[in-house]
Amino acid sequence: MRKKLLKIQTFIDKEGIDAILIKSKSMKKWIATMTGSGCNILITKRNGYIILDGRYLTEAKENEHDLEIVLNNPHLTGKNYLGSVKELLLKDECHSLGVEASVMLVKEYRQIEELDVDIRLLDDELTQLRIVKEQEEIDVMKEAIRITDEIYQNVIKEIKVGMSEYEISALVHYYSFKAGAQQMSFDTIVATGERTAFPHGRPTDRKVKANEPIMIDFGIQYQNYQSDMTRMCFIGEPDPRIKEIYDVVLKAQLAGLAAIKADAFACDVDKAARDVIVEAGYGEYFYHGLGHGLGIGEDGPILNSKSQTLLKENMLMSCEPGVYVPGVGGVRIEDDVLITNGIGVPLNKTTKDYIILEEK
Amino acid sequence: MRKKLLKIQTFIDKEGIDAILIKSKSMKKWIATMTGSGCNILITKRNGYIILDGRYLTEAKENEHDLEIVLNNPHLTGKNYLGSVKELLLKDECHSLGVEASVMLVKEYRQIEELDVDIRLLDDELTQLRIVKEQEEIDVMKEAIRITDEIYQNVIKEIKVGMSEYEISALVHYYSFKAGAQQMSFDTIVATGERTAFPHGRPTDRKVKANEPIMIDFGIQYQNYQSDMTRMCFIGEPDPRIKEIYDVVLKAQLAGLAAIKADAFACDVDKAARDVIVEAGYGEYFYHGLGHGLGIGEDGPILNSKSQTLLKENMLMSCEPGVYVPGVGGVRIEDDVLITNGIGVPLNKTTKDYIILEEK
Repeated sequence: MRKKLLKIQTFIDKEGIDAILIKSKSMKKWIATMTGSGCNILITKRNGYIILDGRYLTEAKENEHDLEIVLNNPHLTGKNYLGSVKELLLKDECHSLGVEASVMLVKEYRQIEELDVDIRLLDDELTQLRIVKEQEEIDVMKEAIRITDEIYQNVIKEIKVGMSEYEISALVHYYSFKAGAQQMSFDTIVATGERTAFPHGRPTDRKVKANEPIMIDFGIQYQNYQSDMTRMCFIGEPDPRIKEIYDVVLKAQLAGLAAIKADAFACDVDKAARDVIVEAGYGEYFYHGLGHGLGIGEDGPILNSKSQTLLKENMLMSCEPGVYVPGVGGVRIEDDVLITNGIGVPLNKTTKDYIILEEK
Repeated sequence: MRKKLLKIQTFIDKEGIDAILIKSKSMKKWIATMTGSGCNILITKRNGYIILDGRYLTEAKENEHDLEIVLNNPHLTGKNYLGSVKELLLKDECHSLGVEASVMLVKEYRQIEELDVDIRLLDDELTQLRIVKEQEEIDVMKEAIRITDEIYQNVIKEIKVGMSEYEISALVHYYSFKAGAQQMSFDTIVATGERTAFPHGRPTDRKVKANEPIMIDFGIQYQNYQSDMTRMCFIGEPDPRIKEIYDVVLKAQLAGLAAIKADAFACDVDKAARDVIVEAGYGEYFYHGLGHGLGIGEDGPILNSKSQTLLKENMLMSCEPGVYVPGVGGVRIEDDVLITNGIGVPLNKTTKDYIILEEK
């Protein structure tokens, strides 16, 4: 946490502001502090504070070592946490304050305007702060991804003909929470048969048949960091048409992986994968970007045809091309990729060969 | 949906505004329209519009019968959806616009200020709109609650000594998603033994022992409506100290239920339950409100010592007193309660007697 605090202090210095107010769950998670809505973080050039009400005091006393705890009890003081912010800004001689545009509601902003400091709305600058990972963050992500591989293995052992998408999704959730997931990274995607042509197919009561594609896209939140993986599996041999799509998508995924490296532009990585799909005649059916950043959530970089981000060592991103043919089906293959020693290394160990399950 | 549209049009008329812009997921769910971030709803006195980009067009054409579909492709027009809002406000001769305070970020608000209409920030007025349920909403809630009871029965059949809180939570998720839950209503609470003294105990790897209290508080989102239930169970007879607390909490819960009726004040309902706990000498250990509204989420009414809401027919709320004694354990018992024919009727069928599981 100490390290993140220093990163933020370097950041505000570079931005030419005296302090920053942090309210978003994602930034609170990133600096490894308490995420409750009654916890507000103020970081000045010299100090870091957590302003909280009585409910959070015991936990804060146990866990907060780097932030100074400031108790504000609205019932007693008649003021919300901004009263404390005002005093602290005065004490630390701050004349400007950065706030997070992504969570700053207009009502609260108006109260902040009354603090009598210059306000700076911060947006992408903040996700930029999170985009290059520390070793500790990489270690947590590796563990989250290892568990994700394990969950997938457990799930596919139980899939059989006649099982509904609901049930497959239930298995994903069962093994995820059994393994200690805090939450799912996002609503789990389970689609079977023709429904795999919906890139974000939410599970239904449709029952899976032999030879059909089964798309599972899921991730777990583990120690605040979020994994994300997509694999296809089949009960028995897949249909030749799906095999053809699968081979194209896999080739594109490998081309994407090969293009992920330090000093590559994100748009060029997207292009490397996309070209394979376009050349195979499926270009119109790959209508989303190649990938997105991984970590706490909404971390960069974005990999799509417009992203000018220059990739760097220790960035972490998904690589997930897909082809979705209406009425036929779709395939997506997704790994979580770390740039290490200059090259993109997929962290998932789950095979990308056809995953053929036995009929039970 | 038609009915909700008319409700909103009556509402804006009453508020003296010409139109309302709806962006929150909760309000979109409530009017049963598409909830994607690229779908924005504008309702004027005369018309209702859904402004969307190309991604949503197919789905909208299939499902939208009451809102006029307005396509805005930012890539073509170079304008975000507010360009369309501006044109529609002009067409429908609107001079004032209500916006949702709960989701209105300052950056977007500044753009809305440029629309050249009077802006009104709407806050609690909007949740008030949702507080009294229509029969269709009650039917969906009843079904969600019926499924919730069923999930709980399935889970407790499998609980045994040595099972971790993670595993119990995994079972809750398994049966919820198998039954077709879209999501959980909130992060599932599973606490065992002394950890039940944490009112919002998140599951850990702690393994349950015989005779210990097991607190499970969970709910499912079903057709956009969210259930919520807490029960305690025990493997074998509970400890006498926990039984004493259980009996007090149950008595308080029943007193709360009896006090829920049309024309009661919410604070009086809270008091009816709280008095029982205070009289038993546990007052300091019941440190949260008695309940909250149910429906889409964040619907009123709030039941606590300060809430001046007057309860009415067809309101739906939780009734969930709790006593949490550090180092000993805690008990909470929660039902979802509908006011029907003037009185509060708990919709959950799961018993509130001690739930004693056999040792396996």
